[in-house]
Amino acid sequence: MSYRVSVLQFEPAYLNPRENISRLTQLLEGLETDLVVLPELCISGYLFRSREDVMATSEVVPTSEAFTALGELAAKGDYSIVYGFAERDGDTFYNSAALLNPDGSHHVYRKTHLYYREKLFFTPGNTGLNVYPAKGGVKIGMMVCFDWYFPESARTMAMKGAQIICHPSNLVLPWCQQAMITRSLENRVFSITSNRIGSEGEGDLKHSFTGMSQILATKGEILVRMEREEIGVKTVEIDPALALDKNVSDMNEIFSDRRPAFYEL
Amino acid sequence: MSYRVSVLQFEPAYLNPRENISRLTQLLEGLETDLVVLPELCISGYLFRSREDVMATSEVVPTSEAFTALGELAAKGDYSIVYGFAERDGDTFYNSAALLNPDGSHHVYRKTHLYYREKLFFTPGNTGLNVYPAKGGVKIGMMVCFDWYFPESARTMAMKGAQIICHPSNLVLPWCQQAMITRSLENRVFSITSNRIGSEGEGDLKHSFTGMSQILATKGEILVRMEREEIGVKTVEIDPALALDKNVSDMNEIFSDRRPAFYEL
Repeated sequence: MSYRVSVLQFEPAYLNPRENISRLTQLLEGLETDLVVLPELCISGYLFRSREDVMATSEVVPTSEAFTALGELAAKGDYSIVYGFAERDGDTFYNSAALLNPDGSHHVYRKTHLYYREKLFFTPGNTGLNVYPAKGGVKIGMMVCFDWYFPESARTMAMKGAQIICHPSNLVLPWCQQAMITRSLENRVFSITSNRIGSEGEGDLKHSFTGMSQILATKGEILVRMEREEIGVKTVEIDPALALDKNVSDMNEIFSDRRPAFYEL
Repeated sequence: MSYRVSVLQFEPAYLNPRENISRLTQLLEGLETDLVVLPELCISGYLFRSREDVMATSEVVPTSEAFTALGELAAKGDYSIVYGFAERDGDTFYNSAALLNPDGSHHVYRKTHLYYREKLFFTPGNTGLNVYPAKGGVKIGMMVCFDWYFPESARTMAMKGAQIICHPSNLVLPWCQQAMITRSLENRVFSITSNRIGSEGEGDLKHSFTGMSQILATKGEILVRMEREEIGVKTVEIDPALALDKNVSDMNEIFSDRRPAFYEL
């Protein structure tokens, strides 16, 4: 099965959802793909200064303007979109990612491991790390940015059958892009890390985002890696069925080789 | 606390324990360190062709010639040694590692995840992944070669308090040295991977070992990385207490940030 997967990299405008919907719409214009991953918090920007900022730019699923606009793009372009956004559920905010399918179905993941000052505004996710069908029935898992640091995140989704880990990010630490090679390899899954570029905040709080969005194959092969400051969308063809093969040698299937009786949880 | 750690890289002679004890003794001659890690199966060689080969070169703890010889080196040099060997326990063989302390105490780890044809001769380890005191009370974990592929191995030992992961290896796959950067980083532990060089076997069964033994710090920094064909011992000073600091940011302690309720085991 040939399946086109894409990663989008851009610089969101801070606290300006309408501008970001417009930038994303422009970048996705004419895209031919089956699945595209957008960055974390790509509608609101990242570095919130107050709860009011989060309130003003957060989205209620499935009625928000961004959710609706991206859902229409998914339907029109006949591809699945995964994007990161500030989700509001009553009085609670989550750092979430949504899968929007061309048939109108959708699934939401709420970030499990919050990074740094996200803890001031967001509640740790309560959805768990799950697997959902994207276009064509391909099984994808969603994790957001800092979730990468915990090997349990990708592991959990891979063990639930994820073929592609979709990973909306706003990366500031220097390690993720290389570590994701290990995440793909140790689970034999594809991974798509969509990062933003630019910076937000000043002085001690300045956050500089590292770009280098990437698509990795099941042995950690780098299929796409964008530049640090590049804006655009990159697409590559993969065979998602490769992620069903967990054999490292003729005698090693990495999931049946696991020995959970000896593992600390 | 300043603590000297060393990694040894060499080419074992196949099925010739006495020659290997002699080579190791020569390489360790005059070494000034607190802890040195030697490769997997460094007494017997790697690619067994028969159960008889394993029988002939396996060691019973604590009476074997190699165990005794290395224990004497540890006492004389006032350092801890971790080395890999074929262990015999009655009719059962394990691919084991031993920690030999200068005070005469010792601990044995039996490889949890066997690679490829090791499964023909060895029984999967029954010790679990534990933490033991090396010289000076520094807490070390032992894992052997292919255990690296499973994030649960280093994770388990780090959660039990390991400051240094000692990793005797005979690496043939191309990924481990880079992946160990992720293992150190995700657990904030030091790691010492001692690999062998050279090759064994012929045709389809030829195994070429990749050298590049290394010592990594708690953020994955490469303190030592040897060449692919180099023979020798490299030493570096570390502060093992750095492994007690699990803070990634002012608001992120990676172990208390874990959310095991959502993890698949």
